[in-house]
Amino acid sequence: MSAPFFTSKWVDVPDSLADLGGDELAPGFLAGGAAAGIKPSGGLDVGLIAGPAETVSAVRFTASSQPAAPVLVTRERARIDAIQTVVVNSGNANAATGRPGLDEAARMQGAAAIATGTGEDRVAVCSTGVIGVQLDGAAVLRGILLAKGEMRRDGAAEFQQAIMTTDATEKRCRVQVTLPEGEVTISAQCKGAGMIQPNFATMLCFIQTDAALSAETADLLLGVCVQRSFDRVSVDGQLSTNDTVILQASGYSGVEIVPESQAEAIFGQALDAILRQLALMMIADGEGAGRIGRGVVRGGDAGAVERVARAVANSPLVKTALHGGDANWGRVVQAIGGALPGPQMIPVDVSIEGVQVCSAGAAIRYDEAALAAAMQGPEIDYEITLPGGGYETEVFFSDLGHGYITINAEYTT
Amino acid sequence: MSAPFFTSKWVDVPDSLADLGGDELAPGFLAGGAAAGIKPSGGLDVGLIAGPAETVSAVRFTASSQPAAPVLVTRERARIDAIQTVVVNSGNANAATGRPGLDEAARMQGAAAIATGTGEDRVAVCSTGVIGVQLDGAAVLRGILLAKGEMRRDGAAEFQQAIMTTDATEKRCRVQVTLPEGEVTISAQCKGAGMIQPNFATMLCFIQTDAALSAETADLLLGVCVQRSFDRVSVDGQLSTNDTVILQASGYSGVEIVPESQAEAIFGQALDAILRQLALMMIADGEGAGRIGRGVVRGGDAGAVERVARAVANSPLVKTALHGGDANWGRVVQAIGGALPGPQMIPVDVSIEGVQVCSAGAAIRYDEAALAAAMQGPEIDYEITLPGGGYETEVFFSDLGHGYITINAEYTT
Repeated sequence: MSAPFFTSKWVDVPDSLADLGGDELAPGFLAGGAAAGIKPSGGLDVGLIAGPAETVSAVRFTASSQPAAPVLVTRERARIDAIQTVVVNSGNANAATGRPGLDEAARMQGAAAIATGTGEDRVAVCSTGVIGVQLDGAAVLRGILLAKGEMRRDGAAEFQQAIMTTDATEKRCRVQVTLPEGEVTISAQCKGAGMIQPNFATMLCFIQTDAALSAETADLLLGVCVQRSFDRVSVDGQLSTNDTVILQASGYSGVEIVPESQAEAIFGQALDAILRQLALMMIADGEGAGRIGRGVVRGGDAGAVERVARAVANSPLVKTALHGGDANWGRVVQAIGGALPGPQMIPVDVSIEGVQVCSAGAAIRYDEAALAAAMQGPEIDYEITLPGGGYETEVFFSDLGHGYITINAEYTT
Repeated sequence: MSAPFFTSKWVDVPDSLADLGGDELAPGFLAGGAAAGIKPSGGLDVGLIAGPAETVSAVRFTASSQPAAPVLVTRERARIDAIQTVVVNSGNANAATGRPGLDEAARMQGAAAIATGTGEDRVAVCSTGVIGVQLDGAAVLRGILLAKGEMRRDGAAEFQQAIMTTDATEKRCRVQVTLPEGEVTISAQCKGAGMIQPNFATMLCFIQTDAALSAETADLLLGVCVQRSFDRVSVDGQLSTNDTVILQASGYSGVEIVPESQAEAIFGQALDAILRQLALMMIADGEGAGRIGRGVVRGGDAGAVERVARAVANSPLVKTALHGGDANWGRVVQAIGGALPGPQMIPVDVSIEGVQVCSAGAAIRYDEAALAAAMQGPEIDYEITLPGGGYETEVFFSDLGHGYITINAEYTT
């Protein structure tokens, strides 16, 4: 964890923020991981995080109407504003598993409550892995007991290993944020990988802080930051059955985040930078993924900019061109035309890496050599302007290469 | 053209229909093709079809809001119920070309009118090829003059060659339909290929018949049949700037298709079978495309079945699994959950090739060996049942393999 965490040009890192690195969590939190035999590899596959009794929390779940059992159990049986313990298994998503799956998720919740000395209703359960296979409950219970014995303040690395599936890189950080009232710490661990084995490609993110904030403030800040990060990335247009993001606050710093204060604004900026960097690391991770793109769409109306941004981000034509380092702007125009069908020609402007290639729907002359060189970078901007004003959105996306086909076509359930 | 035309299990071929094969068009029509130097390969790239003065027609265009110049010119300057001449060039889409592109399309319309002795307003113009590059007008004019000299009753093969771009296979037919009042002929030529060079992947389809039908009847039948064929296929979720389907009727058979008659029903069935087979040939064509799928969705409401069918058809996870011959039904469930987001779990049933794999959202036992064997076939059915009743739709889709990546990532504008 000696490499710098913030690497993307699309993340504004506020001056108030210092990258601490290391394996510790924010003060007040312990984490651990264990190998329970759920992953065929024999790697760590059960993780635990526990905060103190006063921990408050906020949670965001997948919008899928085929939610996994742990999502249903956490959403319906836990106090999501007061999650003290998080238990996660990798290697099996416990999704499309019906009544037995729900029973298993509930047992997992109960066992983690006993292991960490809290109530069942203060335990969030997460799973990631294969869909449609019953979870081995005995293995999970064994894993929870083992992970309990491994819990410590610097257990972030083991916890990270326990939640990873096909991730090629770790996605975690510990940063210090300087507020007018004092310093607070935020730690976070995330899993999810672009363009690979999407049966296993659930996005999970766990964030801990020692700031003192109310559950309402936590919910507000998490909501805003998720909307600007995980909600704005598109790996392959697929929504997982298991996606979960949990923010926990121990209050151990004694620094309070008062609603509508300067401290809230600075803390929010820091959380925003962390979640955006994690989301970008997620789409950059994966075999064959060499380059990531951002579609920025301005003008039109709220619905139009969103549809166009998603259409460009999910277009396999744009994604393969990005993979090949080819501007190929005709594919962007094609995607726009398909996203906004209708009898009227819509005059659009398109710029790639700051080079305008299309004006009012028609080709214009541009410096092809300069754009070709710019396309070789790791992060490519596509800017699209629709008629009308006022609205703007962005979607980040991975490229589409042979690795995706190899793994997804040749992987057998 | 000695191979049988109707090969798909998803096309009901009515007894009234006989596959004639051969290179002739329906009586009354002439076709020809020429090499004008627009295609870098030097192949045929300008095609003409002309019917008699009494020809009536119906046309369907792309819904893209970035329509190509020939689409705009035909839609706005031609009598689409009386198209006598069709002129097509391949190698350049004349899309995103602004005012110069519109002028060029209009000149093409005028030249074809002069060459075939009709009015400009009775000429439909179509282009397919690269986007964002100005069309070489002199080459097109030369091609029109050359193609005019080649026009003949058995010119379907040359015309087909002139409209193809990356198509690996010809997609054309000539069939005889037996109506109570006598026999009529339908000929058709189609281009478009699944999963390859989508800058060139416009779908064009031209249909000729010697039946006598009004423009209103032609429009009604074409509309219904396009909805059940080209509107129900998804290659990669991308809508072209140039898609056009034209039905022309010469009336030369003297057999009239009276509205709401038995003849209309039989003729409609024949047209439906032809367009569905052509649409399926289109998605089956292309490098790397080895297998095609059909998503059938029942229940729910009209919007839900459509969203789910499109989501399954466009899911790169389902498409790569299809390519690998892997049932991998968890990906189907995931696609459904993403297409119908919401807090309520939606209990869905999923069957693949008639084998039920998921009941009310949960895995059930099934004969894995039997399904694995069935998945090796060329045409795979995915049947999805949502709660509620009454609605049903289908979407046909190609698989996603290495060929798509190779050509689309490595192709440079």
